Amino acid sequence: MIILAHGAGGRQTHRLIAEHFQPKFQNPVLDAMEDSAVIDGMALTTDAYVVTPRFFPGGDLGRLAVCGTVNDLSVSGARPLGLAAAFILEEGLALEELDRLLDSMKQAAAEAGVEVVAGDTKVVPRGSCDGVFITTSGMGIVDPSFVPRPTKAQPGDAVIVSGTIGDHGMAVLAAREQFGGADAIRSDVAPVRGLVDALRGFGADVRSLRDPTRGGVAQSLIEIAGASGVRIVVDEPKLPILDVVRSSCEVLGLDPLYVANEGKLLCVVSAARAPEALESLRAHPLGSGASIIGHVESGRPGCEVHTVLGGRRSLRMFSGQQLPRIC
Amino acid sequence: MIILAHGAGGRQTHRLIAEHFQPKFQNPVLDAMEDSAVIDGMALTTDAYVVTPRFFPGGDLGRLAVCGTVNDLSVSGARPLGLAAAFILEEGLALEELDRLLDSMKQAAAEAGVEVVAGDTKVVPRGSCDGVFITTSGMGIVDPSFVPRPTKAQPGDAVIVSGTIGDHGMAVLAAREQFGGADAIRSDVAPVRGLVDALRGFGADVRSLRDPTRGGVAQSLIEIAGASGVRIVVDEPKLPILDVVRSSCEVLGLDPLYVANEGKLLCVVSAARAPEALESLRAHPLGSGASIIGHVESGRPGCEVHTVLGGRRSLRMFSGQQLPRIC
Repeated sequence: MIILAHGAGGRQTHRLIAEHFQPKFQNPVLDAMEDSAVIDGMALTTDAYVVTPRFFPGGDLGRLAVCGTVNDLSVSGARPLGLAAAFILEEGLALEELDRLLDSMKQAAAEAGVEVVAGDTKVVPRGSCDGVFITTSGMGIVDPSFVPRPTKAQPGDAVIVSGTIGDHGMAVLAAREQFGGADAIRSDVAPVRGLVDALRGFGADVRSLRDPTRGGVAQSLIEIAGASGVRIVVDEPKLPILDVVRSSCEVLGLDPLYVANEGKLLCVVSAARAPEALESLRAHPLGSGASIIGHVESGRPGCEVHTVLGGRRSLRMFSGQQLPRIC
Repeated sequence: MIILAHGAGGRQTHRLIAEHFQPKFQNPVLDAMEDSAVIDGMALTTDAYVVTPRFFPGGDLGRLAVCGTVNDLSVSGARPLGLAAAFILEEGLALEELDRLLDSMKQAAAEAGVEVVAGDTKVVPRGSCDGVFITTSGMGIVDPSFVPRPTKAQPGDAVIVSGTIGDHGMAVLAAREQFGGADAIRSDVAPVRGLVDALRGFGADVRSLRDPTRGGVAQSLIEIAGASGVRIVVDEPKLPILDVVRSSCEVLGLDPLYVANEGKLLCVVSAARAPEALESLRAHPLGSGASIIGHVESGRPGCEVHTVLGGRRSLRMFSGQQLPRIC
């Protein structure tokens, strides 16, 4: 039976995909399990967005539906060519709300330098969906000189994140549960395309890129470590975390490393070029808070965190449902 | 406020798109309102599938989700390159049911000669969606020698349909309302890619292709007539309609011309090549029932039907909600 954890991006999601989806659609492109599928020099990606509430500080479902898909294309190294958006609308939805979401999509698409070129609209009776779901797909052109992949991390590489972590997940949670004051935490939802373009010139020295959404930075690093067969060490004191996010996480018993981001870029870069890459990211408005948060080692594949007090703990793929309907 | 008719594919859908979607995403590709968007030699299309019941004679949601999207690509003349499928699953769905849908998708993809290369899975709590929604997007390569468009119909052209009309809509309706015996009407859901390939050699003599889904053959012809600025005349006695579909439509007061098909190809072909094109379609297993059902005239743009008794009636874009959740 399907449980909420099947959609959380952690262990149960991976099992569902490995045991039910992959055996049916067995093909090398899908099996690669990248953020975008690459076929004949083109990239294709899709994501369904079901976030609740639909409006939250810093963004809304419409903005998320554009940024999330553009980001999946971007981290594959592809240049976005066009988006397609499919709407499932519940009977009774206010047209004013639809217009607000469309305005946000338009604005986000302009920021990302891409257009919505195809669409579809279905309406289901009251009670058959929760307001609005948007599925956005993106098509992009592969840049042969820039093909970062989760399989390419090497011992010695540096791990960079483009800014504070956990903002999106905690913003949505705060809006849903109405804690922490009206606007205390803002989602970071934004297109990372510009950040990726800032790294394009580094070519093969950029090994892996991810936008750390469901499951956060931890989940992305675990996947990279597994795909590359390396050990990734995160230096906890170097993690950029807003005070309000940190304290909210502490109260709720959440680890910010596992909380979703929607406008951050996680990069594995060669040690030699990491300082320059960091400067390039910092020169971009969305990367001013970029920092090196760890490095890659040889050894048993996996991830560990070196804590403030000198301790070590393993990062494991999370199990269960940390934060439902965060994207 | 959103009403069911906004999703029915007729007048209200067109108004919703014209008044809410197009003003936001204004760009020539979207404005063309084709089944697929064409950009830089690539085609992109997306559709959300919310059919109920999910299993019906002749097909199911999974088969529909693959065929519908492949068909949108195919009728643009593009060769399908890859599909992406995004699943919204309701907590509590049986894994056995998911597996059945995935098996159908796999089978349909094999028939269509295309692979599912990217995917996404979201799970929403019980009551937040009606079981399973699947949004399938498709990417294709434009064939520069074969670009049928709804704008290209010319006076004198023939109108061909590849087989019996209204089967899908009536099959789903019969399964939902449980009339007409268990298996009396089977959906025609199938990939029309092979039928399109059978016409490829006719090049520019194939003016327009459509897969007449929501709103049926009537809606597709009305759109072609409007886009091309021509008058399309349908010869009612020539319409291929199964007896069981015809009688069910009569009982329910439905016009089979407006009932959805999911495995039929509607073609506007030059008069000179129409007989050959018809033979090519008939040589394909899915086109054995192909027939010429009308022709294109100059005159006031629109569609009319010449009836069995010699009468004439206009075909108008339907208003309201004929059959909800048919695809």
